[in-house]
Amino acid sequence: MKKSAGAKTYLYPTPVLVVGTYDIKDKPNLVTIAWGGICCSKPPCIAISLRKATYTYGSIVQRKAFSVNIASDALCKTVDYIGLVSGKDTNKFKDCNLTAIKSEIIDAPLVKEFPLSLECKLIHTLEIGLHTQFIGEILDVKAEESILDDNGRISTELLKPFVFTPGDRNYYETGAKIGDAFAIGKNLRE
Amino acid sequence: MKKSAGAKTYLYPTPVLVVGTYDIKDKPNLVTIAWGGICCSKPPCIAISLRKATYTYGSIVQRKAFSVNIASDALCKTVDYIGLVSGKDTNKFKDCNLTAIKSEIIDAPLVKEFPLSLECKLIHTLEIGLHTQFIGEILDVKAEESILDDNGRISTELLKPFVFTPGDRNYYETGAKIGDAFAIGKNLRE
Repeated sequence: MKKSAGAKTYLYPTPVLVVGTYDIKDKPNLVTIAWGGICCSKPPCIAISLRKATYTYGSIVQRKAFSVNIASDALCKTVDYIGLVSGKDTNKFKDCNLTAIKSEIIDAPLVKEFPLSLECKLIHTLEIGLHTQFIGEILDVKAEESILDDNGRISTELLKPFVFTPGDRNYYETGAKIGDAFAIGKNLRE
Repeated sequence: MKKSAGAKTYLYPTPVLVVGTYDIKDKPNLVTIAWGGICCSKPPCIAISLRKATYTYGSIVQRKAFSVNIASDALCKTVDYIGLVSGKDTNKFKDCNLTAIKSEIIDAPLVKEFPLSLECKLIHTLEIGLHTQFIGEILDVKAEESILDDNGRISTELLKPFVFTPGDRNYYETGAKIGDAFAIGKNLRE
């Protein structure tokens, strides 16, 4: 018997996305968000949602580009800090000893110390309510060599991404592999 | 030094969403997707993306409602199966010995055996490319008592949600708790 928990944003779990932008004065900025996800395979697109009150909101409207950076779990404290303070008041790259890398294909910075970066060009903006959804076409994915396996493919075990849980507001590591997707369910009816 | 991995949907990780709908003949159906996420806090909304070729696509267009069900990792094989076959050809609830519960507030079924269900009313449809994005307002969240802690709150440890990784196409358990969100980063500058 299921009990009502109310009209809440209780998705378990969500990814932890660190969005990179330049402001009007070319200062690189970052914000940590959990409201987002892949929204199309062709073209490859990612949706991220931001409140108008955030500093990043104005930068995306202006520069029409953003990066989505994924940190390893060892950088969880840094990622949390990035979500707690505003780029209006401080330079988060300096605060966190992070390095902004200039992208060659989008007008937004990547984070050198985070092993995975998606370079996104804004293609849709949708007002939903408190949040505005920005859809970015993923023009390229940049991965550190340290997270590539012997075949040159990105390894989840080497990347060590972490997740957020909205209800209890915790961060969790990625645990053990359970199985191969599009495979382990094949023999369910046999 | 980051290397290019191409224009890919490489978000690490994504949630595993089992979307419930009724078809035109009131047959309950399910599909497993990874393209989705929370997109607004007020009203609480979730975005899910589907290809037009899926059976669920037509059901959402017609019934203007869907549920998003989260399974515990023990049901990973079932969830994978639900993503491999089409509701055109089979009754996935029967195939998997799952029970469709009628929602009292939306025109879509919930899955009894999955401990968490979000009841969503369609409020936006956005054509992106291969995928169409459906935004649902979350009217209520229903949770099994088995995943509630002593204070009646949803516990990630009891829910045991799992994730998908698009690059290597694996499922992973939720691992150990790393820290409290909006908290562990507070003293970064001290």
